[in-house]
Amino acid sequence: MADGKTTASARRPSGQRRADAQRSIDRILDAGLRLYTSRPGVSVAEVAAAAGVGRVTLYGHFPSRTELAKALLERAFAETEAAWREVDTSGPADEALERVLREQWHLMERNRNLRDNIIGDVSPQWLRARHDPILKRIEDLITRGRDDGAFRTDLPLSWLITALYSLVHAASDEISAGRLTTGQAPDVLVASLRSLYRP
Amino acid sequence: MADGKTTASARRPSGQRRADAQRSIDRILDAGLRLYTSRPGVSVAEVAAAAGVGRVTLYGHFPSRTELAKALLERAFAETEAAWREVDTSGPADEALERVLREQWHLMERNRNLRDNIIGDVSPQWLRARHDPILKRIEDLITRGRDDGAFRTDLPLSWLITALYSLVHAASDEISAGRLTTGQAPDVLVASLRSLYRP
Repeated sequence: MADGKTTASARRPSGQRRADAQRSIDRILDAGLRLYTSRPGVSVAEVAAAAGVGRVTLYGHFPSRTELAKALLERAFAETEAAWREVDTSGPADEALERVLREQWHLMERNRNLRDNIIGDVSPQWLRARHDPILKRIEDLITRGRDDGAFRTDLPLSWLITALYSLVHAASDEISAGRLTTGQAPDVLVASLRSLYRP
Repeated sequence: MADGKTTASARRPSGQRRADAQRSIDRILDAGLRLYTSRPGVSVAEVAAAAGVGRVTLYGHFPSRTELAKALLERAFAETEAAWREVDTSGPADEALERVLREQWHLMERNRNLRDNIIGDVSPQWLRARHDPILKRIEDLITRGRDDGAFRTDLPLSWLITALYSLVHAASDEISAGRLTTGQAPDVLVASLRSLYRP
């Protein structure tokens, strides 16, 4: 009985430590996502300061900038994927694609600074693979458009998806570089993909 | 006179050290470019071993992987720019662009592994800026095509250049990912840009 009590009370601080650690991780991710999406060039030290934790604590949870970047992206992607599940891709495929691009552009725009902050920390391959659930919905839409004659069939399906992925991110980067305005970008993108996908 | 002799002989070892340092840098860059272009995933330690220098020596000349990557790219770009200066961009702009893409594709193909090796070490902005001399030739060609009606004028000139830059590198990455063959890539690229640039 005395033994049982000792064990239980020994466990409590450990449970407490786990809860503290989780709260500290949550604070880091909340502050990190807020900072990373607000402007480019954010340092890990700034994230620690904004989260109200020491750098040693931050590095204890995220040993490298890459680990922090991946955790922040996972959080951002959870939201993005939820938004994509709501997208209406019914009707003619070419009209649906244009609607999808215009309606979902705000997510690209919201995540543009996040992208600038993480682009040196994760590999392009990791980033592309992490887009797969979203690109699967685009793939289904392109496949339907190819079947009903709205989209070209002389180029590989995988290339049409990659071209979209590349041009969407290129348009976002052009805004960051000051070569496109946020107003121009969706129009330029839609016009480009319409030409590229036409049979 | 005795002073003059002392100074001269004191200078010789220093000149010798500089010459040794330059030879060591040349060996590192030769070995580095050979390894980086041969396969992805090359480590700095492998470059040092192939150059026959110690890691401390390599890091003495190139303090980080980024410094080494930039030096290797500068060397590769010198060759690439020389090849571009030979390109014949005369005749109808659309035909010239297709010819340029097909003739210069072998440079992309030769530098594909180099790109894989350095992509995590330099920023996309640095890499894009380093392409400016090549892209200037493309810009002149597109401008001529817009003037004579071969290319569309409803999208910004800067966007047409960026779309080409993005799709050329996307096609190269698709080969690395196993989604395009080296034979398919130039055809797919030419067909895509023809559609994208058409008025």
